[in-house]
Amino acid sequence: MSLRINLDNIAIVLHRPRYPENIGAAARAACNMGIRRLIVVSPRDCDLTRVLKMATHFAADIVEAMEVFEDLEEALAPFQYVVGTTARVGSRRPTISDPGKLAEGLIPISQDNLIAIVFGPENWGLTNAELRLCHALVTIPTGEFASLNVAQAVMILSYEILLASRQDDPHFTPRLATRQELEAMYKQLRETFVNINFINAENPDYWMGHIRRFFSRVDMCARDVRMIRGICRQI
Amino acid sequence: MSLRINLDNIAIVLHRPRYPENIGAAARAACNMGIRRLIVVSPRDCDLTRVLKMATHFAADIVEAMEVFEDLEEALAPFQYVVGTTARVGSRRPTISDPGKLAEGLIPISQDNLIAIVFGPENWGLTNAELRLCHALVTIPTGEFASLNVAQAVMILSYEILLASRQDDPHFTPRLATRQELEAMYKQLRETFVNINFINAENPDYWMGHIRRFFSRVDMCARDVRMIRGICRQI
Repeated sequence: MSLRINLDNIAIVLHRPRYPENIGAAARAACNMGIRRLIVVSPRDCDLTRVLKMATHFAADIVEAMEVFEDLEEALAPFQYVVGTTARVGSRRPTISDPGKLAEGLIPISQDNLIAIVFGPENWGLTNAELRLCHALVTIPTGEFASLNVAQAVMILSYEILLASRQDDPHFTPRLATRQELEAMYKQLRETFVNINFINAENPDYWMGHIRRFFSRVDMCARDVRMIRGICRQI
Repeated sequence: MSLRINLDNIAIVLHRPRYPENIGAAARAACNMGIRRLIVVSPRDCDLTRVLKMATHFAADIVEAMEVFEDLEEALAPFQYVVGTTARVGSRRPTISDPGKLAEGLIPISQDNLIAIVFGPENWGLTNAELRLCHALVTIPTGEFASLNVAQAVMILSYEILLASRQDDPHFTPRLATRQELEAMYKQLRETFVNINFINAENPDYWMGHIRRFFSRVDMCARDVRMIRGICRQI
């Protein structure tokens, strides 16, 4: 059973977002990944009808509880740890991490500290002065076209945080076939193939080698062996 | 220095998208992550003005080169490896992977094979019949609210593929069977199984479902298909 970490101490902060649709899409993305605190600073337009349309009714309560500030420093005041997102790389900046490594580091911090993840305006990102408020910077890797939609950037960070918050679930694996079951299957296949003249009775090993290599690429379960032997019987 | 892998063999396929904005946002997301081939199947509305607005001018050439089909099977015909995205978990489905593991597996396959990653309509996702066309299924982990915007889902898969492409050298993978080659094989298997009374001629789909799930666990190569069809001919 995996340990489920509470993400209540993590907030998404949108600084000067320009479009209400992006606020709504960011709310939905955060909600998808189990992050429920959204802060908006100095939005150009915060038309709630347009915000809620993109948030969908599932994330409507996040929008309703959304905090709105005029000033970034004021919005960040209660937070113990602030992460800035940036596409640009500058030599005067603190260490820049990738989303996966950052998220791994955030989970232990989040247990006893409030964490804010700050996203800049759509057109130019966070300024150097704003980035100086941050303890850590993160850059989302991209191809040549580096300009991400702000809600997409929220999604990737939130997704990495959700992944980091979960231990590996052990997947259920059905019982694999034993060596004995497999050998009995190969014996039956060989007899069947000789009977239908698919392989030469005098030198069956050449084709059986192919057959064995084929089946060994599947993790054969006990029930697969039963199925294959059922087919042989009918032949 | 990491090897930069070419992602030209990977296509994003949107099946029955409902909103042109989502097509545009998906084009931008794929473009951000270096994936440049977009296929749209049976869109409800493909208003290019609305598509291009969300794509931004950086992804405009992806939208211009976008292929549009009426039928999913036809769209997938040339692809050797098809991945379906699904939020639902059902016991009759092939193994479901998470985006990171899936992406790692896709990179070596993509060196000599065309890969399609299929996203279903916004409101209900891919049907079981559509998922049967897929070699692998992937589910994006979420919190309680599992319904992702389709462009957000495209972003996460594309992001994981970009990350995986920057890992170590890919292994060589032989040419996989195309969807067309596989469907011809299943047709022949079905006829053969009916002839030998292994499956009931009146309700062959139940057993053929097991057979398809079995084979989809192997990355079937063109030569494997030839071997299986050779066996059918002899039977």
